[in-house]
Amino acid sequence: MTAELPKTPPTATLASGDAATRSVYFVSDSTGITAETLGNALLANFPGTRFRRQTVPFVSTVSGAKKILTSLTRSREAGENPLIFTTVKSADVLAVLHASDFETIDLLGGHLRELELALGTTASVQPGSFHGLGDAERYFARMRAVEYAIEHDDAQSFRALDQADVIIIAPSRCGKTPTTMYLALQYGLLVANYPLTDDDFPTEALPPTVAPYAKKCFGLTTTPLRLSQVRHERRPDSVYASLAQCTLELRRAEDLYRRNRVPFLNSSTKSVEEMSAVIMQSMRLRA
Amino acid sequence: MTAELPKTPPTATLASGDAATRSVYFVSDSTGITAETLGNALLANFPGTRFRRQTVPFVSTVSGAKKILTSLTRSREAGENPLIFTTVKSADVLAVLHASDFETIDLLGGHLRELELALGTTASVQPGSFHGLGDAERYFARMRAVEYAIEHDDAQSFRALDQADVIIIAPSRCGKTPTTMYLALQYGLLVANYPLTDDDFPTEALPPTVAPYAKKCFGLTTTPLRLSQVRHERRPDSVYASLAQCTLELRRAEDLYRRNRVPFLNSSTKSVEEMSAVIMQSMRLRA
Repeated sequence: MTAELPKTPPTATLASGDAATRSVYFVSDSTGITAETLGNALLANFPGTRFRRQTVPFVSTVSGAKKILTSLTRSREAGENPLIFTTVKSADVLAVLHASDFETIDLLGGHLRELELALGTTASVQPGSFHGLGDAERYFARMRAVEYAIEHDDAQSFRALDQADVIIIAPSRCGKTPTTMYLALQYGLLVANYPLTDDDFPTEALPPTVAPYAKKCFGLTTTPLRLSQVRHERRPDSVYASLAQCTLELRRAEDLYRRNRVPFLNSSTKSVEEMSAVIMQSMRLRA
Repeated sequence: MTAELPKTPPTATLASGDAATRSVYFVSDSTGITAETLGNALLANFPGTRFRRQTVPFVSTVSGAKKILTSLTRSREAGENPLIFTTVKSADVLAVLHASDFETIDLLGGHLRELELALGTTASVQPGSFHGLGDAERYFARMRAVEYAIEHDDAQSFRALDQADVIIIAPSRCGKTPTTMYLALQYGLLVANYPLTDDDFPTEALPPTVAPYAKKCFGLTTTPLRLSQVRHERRPDSVYASLAQCTLELRRAEDLYRRNRVPFLNSSTKSVEEMSAVIMQSMRLRA
């Protein structure tokens, strides 16, 4: 029953050349994470358009889909021009979305057909739940990795350092902690991190705590100006945040990396996702 | 120059009915995260097939693509039957992949065309970098959220609790910390968490520390058996891990949530991604 919704060909609602903000709805039968990830990756290719995003998770029934359409119809009456990205798998629920006159981009369907062909087998009819518990062993490994990351953040503990997949070393505020958390939460890697302080620099060797694990070490650096800015946020007008101190610490850290053949990257223009990808590739940690 | 690669129609390499493990390569011009996310979401629909996954990030040149094909050809000679998922945007690089005789599923291309139609405008020709720094303001908000989460994990700090978007409360080992980290890292939400201990149960009200922020509170519970198992991993054969103690704490926690109208969920069958989606939906935190 979608009779209450006006039916016009999709092209009639194309806002060609419309410079206004487009409303984008990520409609999922599960968490919405896949729809957000791919949807946002696609939208990033249209830097000239502004988007207002809304995620609608757990839409697994026809009545749930109809409720969304009612809400979208109201949004349109209020001047919005909604666009739907969906990862819903149920043919019935999808049919409701496609039968509406809102632009609906099905992010999974076509690829599932391609994959059925490639694998020579049929896709399961269960609703998608890639972001559910799924492979329990892999899931609990990720949860343990988060615990390990928190226990080993900022050299708080040296217990079980031999179990680390990677030890990230860097001067304070180069991005160790968020990168550590990302590698743990997304990939279940055991990641410790160790801050390089003034005490670590008089010698030419790695700090004694991490020296036995030199092959697990990965270094971060950044630009002195960027580091100084970030440190000023934490401790304004301190020696710690001064450009001179930042320049010195970064130069010493880079020397230390080179002397000890520790691979390193400059974090100033990289996201945690990019740093994680580089670290995994460099340390051959990527499955 | 792909002349060294054998050219046969794609169907000739279809391993129809092949029950062996399939090798899957996520080939990206950036981090590979979008390819992994969508690719794995698709593979989850084929529970009867086993997959060996490999991510190949930062493939942005024709020569990079040819190097991969060389490596895939070697894998095939070793008995593998590789399948490529790609989010590469460059037409030249894509052409190299498509010209090979490996099954190649282009995860972005078709949708970009759909989106161009829907938006009435042309996609940028820049390589994709959705997982780059992108919107700097949003990115640094996520990084600050990770700091906030670590500072406020397990009631370590009560500073700036009024700034929290949500305060997750639960007995020990119900999943507060990984859920907190996920909400911070993925969505840039300011999340504190507070453990309910025996001391918090004699009264009927929320613990004094979080009581002023009752409307920001979200509770977690689990099953006594699951909680007991998880606690045994940390402190084997302790009162803390006993089924009786777990049953008592969970019953008291649920009573507390109900009496104070704190929304809550059972974490025993939910992933951190699912819990995060429920929390955001329930607290109307989802953009």
